[in-house]
Amino acid sequence: MISQFYKDMTGKRSVIRDFFDYSMQREKEMGKDSVINFSLGNPSVPAPAEFEKAMIDLIQNEDPVVLHGYSPTLGRPSTRQAIAESLNRRFGMDYEMKHIFPTTGAAGALSHAIRCVAAEGDEVITFAPYFPEYIPYVTGCGPNLKVVPADIETFQINFEVFEEMMNPKVAAVLINSPNNPSGIVYTTETIKRLASILTEKEKEYGHEIFLISDEPYREIVFEGTDSPYITAFYDNSISCYSFSKSLSIPGERLGYVAVNPKAKDADMIVPMCGQISRFTGHNCPPSIIQLAAEKVLDLTSDLSVYETNAKILYNALTEMGYQIVKPGGTFYMFPKCPIEDANEFCWTAAKELGLIIVPSDSFDVKSHFRISYCVTTETVEKSLPLFEKLIKMF
Amino acid sequence: MISQFYKDMTGKRSVIRDFFDYSMQREKEMGKDSVINFSLGNPSVPAPAEFEKAMIDLIQNEDPVVLHGYSPTLGRPSTRQAIAESLNRRFGMDYEMKHIFPTTGAAGALSHAIRCVAAEGDEVITFAPYFPEYIPYVTGCGPNLKVVPADIETFQINFEVFEEMMNPKVAAVLINSPNNPSGIVYTTETIKRLASILTEKEKEYGHEIFLISDEPYREIVFEGTDSPYITAFYDNSISCYSFSKSLSIPGERLGYVAVNPKAKDADMIVPMCGQISRFTGHNCPPSIIQLAAEKVLDLTSDLSVYETNAKILYNALTEMGYQIVKPGGTFYMFPKCPIEDANEFCWTAAKELGLIIVPSDSFDVKSHFRISYCVTTETVEKSLPLFEKLIKMF
Repeated sequence: MISQFYKDMTGKRSVIRDFFDYSMQREKEMGKDSVINFSLGNPSVPAPAEFEKAMIDLIQNEDPVVLHGYSPTLGRPSTRQAIAESLNRRFGMDYEMKHIFPTTGAAGALSHAIRCVAAEGDEVITFAPYFPEYIPYVTGCGPNLKVVPADIETFQINFEVFEEMMNPKVAAVLINSPNNPSGIVYTTETIKRLASILTEKEKEYGHEIFLISDEPYREIVFEGTDSPYITAFYDNSISCYSFSKSLSIPGERLGYVAVNPKAKDADMIVPMCGQISRFTGHNCPPSIIQLAAEKVLDLTSDLSVYETNAKILYNALTEMGYQIVKPGGTFYMFPKCPIEDANEFCWTAAKELGLIIVPSDSFDVKSHFRISYCVTTETVEKSLPLFEKLIKMF
Repeated sequence: MISQFYKDMTGKRSVIRDFFDYSMQREKEMGKDSVINFSLGNPSVPAPAEFEKAMIDLIQNEDPVVLHGYSPTLGRPSTRQAIAESLNRRFGMDYEMKHIFPTTGAAGALSHAIRCVAAEGDEVITFAPYFPEYIPYVTGCGPNLKVVPADIETFQINFEVFEEMMNPKVAAVLINSPNNPSGIVYTTETIKRLASILTEKEKEYGHEIFLISDEPYREIVFEGTDSPYITAFYDNSISCYSFSKSLSIPGERLGYVAVNPKAKDADMIVPMCGQISRFTGHNCPPSIIQLAAEKVLDLTSDLSVYETNAKILYNALTEMGYQIVKPGGTFYMFPKCPIEDANEFCWTAAKELGLIIVPSDSFDVKSHFRISYCVTTETVEKSLPLFEKLIKMF
């Protein structure tokens, strides 16, 4: 019998999707130049040449039966070992292979991490603004997602409300820094305060509270930004990473779960991920991508265009009168709308100017909009007169 | 709080795993020649050269931002279209792109298909012998798995028991032909009779009953075997395919769901799969693998060694006195043990002779053993004197 639950979901429209569809339609009717699209979070720079070279080397020199053969359930051992060593070298951690579980991107990593530490009836707390897919990731395995409203002055954590919302049902706290959509990076002070509250609450409730850290933008941090390695500050923590943005390979589906070696049952969590995979049909990420990424773990694509674009946009838009919390990384910023209704503001931008930006409501914040500036600097420069016209309309 | 459910699972030993570990230990202690390993279902022939060539062409000639970029949620359109056309050409079907959902292998395909048509409290019926991972695939999304005992004379379907077990709670029937572990292919007669019972029961119960057909071995069928394209015989059917065996790329994780265009809500099921992905963190299979496979859809690896091995083993072992239902495809056969206890029989083979075969209990059948002959023909020939010694021990 056809599942009514999933069938009903297909009918629901996504606002981001509506804007994207409008931009496609406008391009078709009025030409490519009629649209400047800041709606999508797709990397705009190529993968490092070393990654492409590693792929070709593997195809030309490895035994294809091994190269394309099954990974062990927990992933390619050489890849897991190399990831542990890279993290230890770069962040002073003590990961061993047994703490690393390769996944199909951050989506796979989060789905596994959440199932490891939270179940039906538990609560998982996250902080607005947050990536809307957290809702299915969390609720899909049973727990309830509770959201701490945004501190729109800083987009750091609203600790007052957070402490009020803490209760013994909370099994995990889910954070995303550098943040999509705000571009904000949690400071060392924020992370220390969060860790200290969690430690205190663990004692009070008599059970562990896991910190799940979603870090696909970890490598995209701008000069001068304080960017702590989050899980180093709290023992019961799991880092969820993706190579989608750092290596510009989002379609190849590679990420990992890295379990803090000091976490409770640290040696059990990766084998548990292996079991969880069986229930979701996840299996390992692609073998050749694991083996190629292993060769370029300390490299990234040339990510400098994102910082260049951030500077140009931030300086020009604040000059025009937009209120923006200055992004410290990612390829997003999250300005305030000059009117309350973010949808009205963004539809005006789209229909009057062909400027495609995304209203903040999907991220559980009112009256803001997201600019995804993973585009060429030329496109950013072309957009500036449009942002100027836009703010003058209100 | 650490999930007790998944933690407990990590402690459970798999019998197949025990045999595999023993073979590794024996090789270490007594040398490589002390073991002949028939325990694993890994393809032993390389991917077609055309697949490797397609990979290199893509890397050298495509824009890397597009090549490694996000697939649309429902998969690469060109890949979906090419799969539909290939199936139509080869099996006289009328698939359109909208009926095809690329997945991470058959595991991904089954996990999606089951979630589409069965929910908590429903029953899914399968037939022994069956792949043990069906248990987590089915129970992981709520339904109960009910098993029709094997017809050990033919390994076709035990229809008498099947009809007794049918009841209004049955939402789906899950079959696997060509079959792991028996190597048997369901005949046209079997499929027609199954379809006719399902059609009748749909009318009786007043709801659809989906036929989910797990077909990773579809391309490995031996000469003279009747091998119908299953879903052509029943409207409410979903075919779950994997390129793991046909292209020898199990580690690259590519398969698909193909929805029968005549199924109820046929146009909805693929969009529903897209929604299901969000809850399991599945996302699309790797972009470059989709695009490379698209170029070689009508090809397979050179699979002839499997048929050669099947003939040699079947002829020699029946001559020695083993009772075997002759396999029609795959790279498995499933002989009867000369004693009741399959575990005792297989441990004797392993410890006395270094012959690693797998007892049938994991596949929900007593007193049989599985031979995975995806090995060189030389290995098969070396094994024959050992099989001869083995049967003489009982």
